[in-house]
Amino acid sequence: MPTEFALSCPLPITERKNIIMGHGSGGKLTAQLVRDLFLPAFDNAILRKLDDQAVVTAGSERLAFTTDSYVVTPIFFPGGDIGDLAVNGTVNDLAMSGAKPLFLSAAFIMEEGLPVEELARVVESMGKAARRAGVSIVTGDTKVVNKGSADRLFVTTAGIGLVPAGVNISASNAQPGDRILISGSIGDHGMAVLSKREGLEFEGTIQSDTAALNDLVRVMLEAGDVHVLRDPTRGGLATSLCEIATSSGTGVEIDAQTLLVRDDVRGACEILGLDPLWVANEGKLVAFVPAASAAPVLAAMRGHEHGRDARIIGQVVDRHTGFALLKTEIGGTRVLDLPFTEQLPRIC
Amino acid sequence: MPTEFALSCPLPITERKNIIMGHGSGGKLTAQLVRDLFLPAFDNAILRKLDDQAVVTAGSERLAFTTDSYVVTPIFFPGGDIGDLAVNGTVNDLAMSGAKPLFLSAAFIMEEGLPVEELARVVESMGKAARRAGVSIVTGDTKVVNKGSADRLFVTTAGIGLVPAGVNISASNAQPGDRILISGSIGDHGMAVLSKREGLEFEGTIQSDTAALNDLVRVMLEAGDVHVLRDPTRGGLATSLCEIATSSGTGVEIDAQTLLVRDDVRGACEILGLDPLWVANEGKLVAFVPAASAAPVLAAMRGHEHGRDARIIGQVVDRHTGFALLKTEIGGTRVLDLPFTEQLPRIC
Repeated sequence: MPTEFALSCPLPITERKNIIMGHGSGGKLTAQLVRDLFLPAFDNAILRKLDDQAVVTAGSERLAFTTDSYVVTPIFFPGGDIGDLAVNGTVNDLAMSGAKPLFLSAAFIMEEGLPVEELARVVESMGKAARRAGVSIVTGDTKVVNKGSADRLFVTTAGIGLVPAGVNISASNAQPGDRILISGSIGDHGMAVLSKREGLEFEGTIQSDTAALNDLVRVMLEAGDVHVLRDPTRGGLATSLCEIATSSGTGVEIDAQTLLVRDDVRGACEILGLDPLWVANEGKLVAFVPAASAAPVLAAMRGHEHGRDARIIGQVVDRHTGFALLKTEIGGTRVLDLPFTEQLPRIC
Repeated sequence: MPTEFALSCPLPITERKNIIMGHGSGGKLTAQLVRDLFLPAFDNAILRKLDDQAVVTAGSERLAFTTDSYVVTPIFFPGGDIGDLAVNGTVNDLAMSGAKPLFLSAAFIMEEGLPVEELARVVESMGKAARRAGVSIVTGDTKVVNKGSADRLFVTTAGIGLVPAGVNISASNAQPGDRILISGSIGDHGMAVLSKREGLEFEGTIQSDTAALNDLVRVMLEAGDVHVLRDPTRGGLATSLCEIATSSGTGVEIDAQTLLVRDDVRGACEILGLDPLWVANEGKLVAFVPAASAAPVLAAMRGHEHGRDARIIGQVVDRHTGFALLKTEIGGTRVLDLPFTEQLPRIC
């Protein structure tokens, strides 16, 4: 057991006087904010599961319910914009419970002076993304704040999906022996936004991978048994693996040699000193499946447009409970950890 | 028919270059934004109803689904704060379809530097409001933006409710002969926020009326038949009446003498040149009920803590279709209209 973890524990939220960027990182400070401030105030068993979506019972149906605010800057980036990012992100959070996404809400906070043409582009992009994903945006809200009180445009989407009978997918369901599958390359979205924002000109343009994964999930569930699904967005693959290890009380081991990082993403990461394992993805999922289902689920993924580069990257073990380890390319072992603070602010 | 309406029609959104504060007013500019920009992009029959909530079918259940962003400033005001305002607002939007509100999501956009103590107060207030309303906050999100990129704290809530079998309440259901009931005084919330923000010191402090109305709706539905329910928030009672007249293709007539405006609210409105008919309420509802149900529904309202001052303020007629008229205190008739732009920015 790595003992340095106890030492890296951040200050309790109550001892911090002000919110800092790291509280929005999806890492340790965010987790602490949730644990020390939101969970006690909102206390209920569903929220305490800390999945990316709540699975609730309404009448005779099981529903998935989720929300996310999008504050990405710039609002247009190679491969997408704040609009399709918001739709795809909410569709994916629903799909990661095995639910069929059905309905979305969309709330807009606009800064006075926002060009109507930009709003129109975002809204059209949301409509297209919704149609592609097979969901309807059925309710919404618009607010305008004075110039200087927001940064152009923030979009908050929420979504409802229907969880099929018998489906039970949660970050707490990983079991020793499970194989860990990822649907493709890592780090594309974060580096696409960062490159655009910083005006960096790498060879070629890195494209965001933003995409709705509900249809990929559908073919996976038809092919075999699935214990855990998660889309490694803010905080990247490493954060998702840490969270799953913690939630399920198991150990996670992955092999660096199996990870796919596009050359342009790797190059950009090297220049900026970032590790793609912690960089956000917006069109990838990680799946934990029993060994017997690994081959059929992998085959189903590879047959789908959003899983062509799918691969097995590791397995679940019954040691180093709550921790995710990386076997490095030179044969060493590295402990993956939640980022303490913000590696890449405002990339989603 | 008032002919000046054609002349007051604002520029099509596409001919406006930039978003102005009025696009968030809940009035004509908001309506235009929705009609010209959101409806074409998100096109679907549910959104086109333009109710404050969508009623959708998921599996074998009918659900109400709604969202609102809250950008009120200041975030603490007499009688409430941005937190209980958000919870009560979403609970009320669900209740106005006759649904039983069940689950809420909460997404926070925080400005770097926000005092943790303020966030904690808001979050505790949300937890309390949720418990009072009998709903659970089951999922959420936190984002942090750089100092100067937001104004302290924006909260976006979404909610799910279960619509009981046989209940069919919509702004489009008003029928000639319906009596129009309101649950109490008007203008309290807007004037409470404005007084606090402008540092105005009226005699006594005007309190926001923020409250969850789902239990009031429950007793009303037990007492009689209800065609339309709406909480007259942004844009006030006048805006709600105009929207209902338009949606249902009927005429609305109310009598100024029946309206209850608290003395302190009336005084503040007079000083500031505002009309309480267009000032936001956050704990009131207007109900359209068939004549035969008016007496029992009114009695049920008066027996409830949130309807003690309930009264009949008018009726639905089959003339001046799409318009709401006010019989003034001196016996004249005034056409109520949507506000063109922002009377009171950022009061919710």
